[in-house]
Amino acid sequence: MEITQRELKDFKMRNFPVEICFKPIGIIHTPFKDLRGIPIQASMSENDGKIEIFTEFQEGLKDLDGFSHLICLYYFDMVQLPVALRSKPFLVDEVKGVFAIRTPFRPNPIGLSVLKIKEIAANFISVAQVDILDKTPLIDIKPYIPQFDSPKTTKIGWLKKKIRKMVS
Amino acid sequence: MEITQRELKDFKMRNFPVEICFKPIGIIHTPFKDLRGIPIQASMSENDGKIEIFTEFQEGLKDLDGFSHLICLYYFDMVQLPVALRSKPFLVDEVKGVFAIRTPFRPNPIGLSVLKIKEIAANFISVAQVDILDKTPLIDIKPYIPQFDSPKTTKIGWLKKKIRKMVS
Repeated sequence: MEITQRELKDFKMRNFPVEICFKPIGIIHTPFKDLRGIPIQASMSENDGKIEIFTEFQEGLKDLDGFSHLICLYYFDMVQLPVALRSKPFLVDEVKGVFAIRTPFRPNPIGLSVLKIKEIAANFISVAQVDILDKTPLIDIKPYIPQFDSPKTTKIGWLKKKIRKMVS
Repeated sequence: MEITQRELKDFKMRNFPVEICFKPIGIIHTPFKDLRGIPIQASMSENDGKIEIFTEFQEGLKDLDGFSHLICLYYFDMVQLPVALRSKPFLVDEVKGVFAIRTPFRPNPIGLSVLKIKEIAANFISVAQVDILDKTPLIDIKPYIPQFDSPKTTKIGWLKKKIRKMVS
């Protein structure tokens, strides 16, 4: 299964897609059995979780154990579309644009958490500090690489005076 | 359109999805008209780009201009599935698990770039240092929040001795 040839579609046939469909590659197990009490971000959680990769994808986990953190992309499967394009985030009582907040209630309900890897055994990744509903469908796992993913930021907008309180 | 009520599906009806489908919310314009010469990561690019949000989603951009960086999720629409679960990344001549590398050739071909916001005007976001093919379908935009997205990492696996050379 060690194919190294990369498969591309024909560039001349490229069409802008009406719909983009993915198949879950796994399921995320966490202590959060319903929507109450889920931490609003991983950095605020004290609960561990387990990412199960379906066995058909298990060999893709090779070498991930060398990284301390991963980026987990998942589907907020409880969100009913369409969503409001402006709403109140958890932290302030003001309406903000959906692309300026981290609400699950997004036009495409994709979640992103940067999680600490505790252990990888067979097709399970134990992770620390999860902020995810139990049985959430997993879309992708990427290694977290600070040189790519952690720029020198200068502005965090409406969160400026809110965040210190929240993450302490 | 300022709905603040949050819509959820009925928890009792929750079913694990066979397929997860999204509709593009925009299109990413970059100088990279074909697949040659695209920087392998945003941090290595010297080219600006423009993210066009379709006008129906434009009001969701409110307040994003307060942030210096955004997280851009997009669809690698040129990837032909299925992909290999192990392949060689750009930086080393060794086969790695797909979830331990940042290749576009992933079971679910989703791209993630952290990009610097230069300007937001109407439904266009000008961004610095893009590493994305022109006309790429946009799936989501999130504000980059270092307190959530930038953990103290300790290990970057197989990239350890490669990355300094690459990003300098």
